[in-house]
Amino acid sequence: MITIYGKNCVYEALRKKSKLQKVMISSIQAEKDKNIIDILKKNGYKYEIVEKDKLDSKYKDNQGYVAIREDYKIYSIEDLPKFKREKGRILILDGIQDPHNFGAIIRSVDAFGYDLIILPNNRSVRITEVVAHVSTGAIEYTNIMYVNSLLSIVTELKKLGYWIVGTDASGTTLASNIDKSLSLAVIIGSEGFGMSKTLVKQSDFILKIPMVGHVNSLNASVSTGIVLNDLKNY
Amino acid sequence: MITIYGKNCVYEALRKKSKLQKVMISSIQAEKDKNIIDILKKNGYKYEIVEKDKLDSKYKDNQGYVAIREDYKIYSIEDLPKFKREKGRILILDGIQDPHNFGAIIRSVDAFGYDLIILPNNRSVRITEVVAHVSTGAIEYTNIMYVNSLLSIVTELKKLGYWIVGTDASGTTLASNIDKSLSLAVIIGSEGFGMSKTLVKQSDFILKIPMVGHVNSLNASVSTGIVLNDLKNY
Repeated sequence: MITIYGKNCVYEALRKKSKLQKVMISSIQAEKDKNIIDILKKNGYKYEIVEKDKLDSKYKDNQGYVAIREDYKIYSIEDLPKFKREKGRILILDGIQDPHNFGAIIRSVDAFGYDLIILPNNRSVRITEVVAHVSTGAIEYTNIMYVNSLLSIVTELKKLGYWIVGTDASGTTLASNIDKSLSLAVIIGSEGFGMSKTLVKQSDFILKIPMVGHVNSLNASVSTGIVLNDLKNY
Repeated sequence: MITIYGKNCVYEALRKKSKLQKVMISSIQAEKDKNIIDILKKNGYKYEIVEKDKLDSKYKDNQGYVAIREDYKIYSIEDLPKFKREKGRILILDGIQDPHNFGAIIRSVDAFGYDLIILPNNRSVRITEVVAHVSTGAIEYTNIMYVNSLLSIVTELKKLGYWIVGTDASGTTLASNIDKSLSLAVIIGSEGFGMSKTLVKQSDFILKIPMVGHVNSLNASVSTGIVLNDLKNY
């Protein structure tokens, strides 16, 4: 079970008809937002109207909406062929640590129609309440896979016909020079250390985002958003 | 005075030769990073080597580097003509609230060579220690202006020859259709409510980021990064 909170998160879970053990709405919101009570009743969800203070003491920024949700479905390497399609788009996060970055990345993955996010089991952020919250409900529509070895999954992706697009300071390929009709698996490195050298070697292209500033490093969720947008398949 | 913390923040302040009242380095880092002590000595900065625990109890994620810096220079509307140049690029933040978003946006503004960020005095994030930290030192190279009225500044920008690019759900113009040789002032709306209607009306273009997902809203710093990249002048 995972607790989700915030108006968008709870609304998207309901829109997706996700399994919710219980929904809690603050008495203030229950009064203001008759719609939510209608939806809960119509779909037979168990709900409680509780005092705002009770929710606020436990969940930051809950906006009066909290739900206990079944765990998100997690895919594993065996499921990979299911996601294969023409002009496929898969995102690999090689060591992202910050839950705010991961939540923001999930929003971009949904917005730009990517099929799957792959994370390593070790040394990586995982789905938490904060991640779900920051995703503002986009996590309901995002496929997520945990794997033991990113190197193994990259090998599988190549067998399935994906081209591997790394992102590294050593990059020389502009997004505009990559054929968008290919199936692409994009790798984003960790906040502090970038992509692992092993995966840089496995990449068919290393992408360059041309920058002219002094610090010349972007926030990880920002650079991910830019890359996903630049390589979108529509 | 403002306290800056984190290795990149302190290093960039030194690189920029900013006025620092005092620098504190943890004894562990002073041992590991001889370079920082050399720089501090060579440039006559007052510094202290202190126990890691003492820094950690006060500053999250300080990495052993803390400095007390003079306040960042803030520009006002009278300074606007100074920033005028060919293919100028100015960013207006219409009500951004979250310091993490603002810090990430400052990194993008530096990376993509934008000349200035303009914020309203009211209902907006301002420069804080968290903002400076999240900017990983990019704030040292970023020009920031506070104004009383965004409407007045937009009027001034138009007089100076800037084209106003709004970003709103009602947008119809693709970035690829905007002439990059123009001087552009880009407006990004607040996290919850987007751009104010008054500024939408003042815009010469309303930009559209084509999305195909279910939630179709991006984190504010991610959408800013995408727009700054798409409209860069080089």
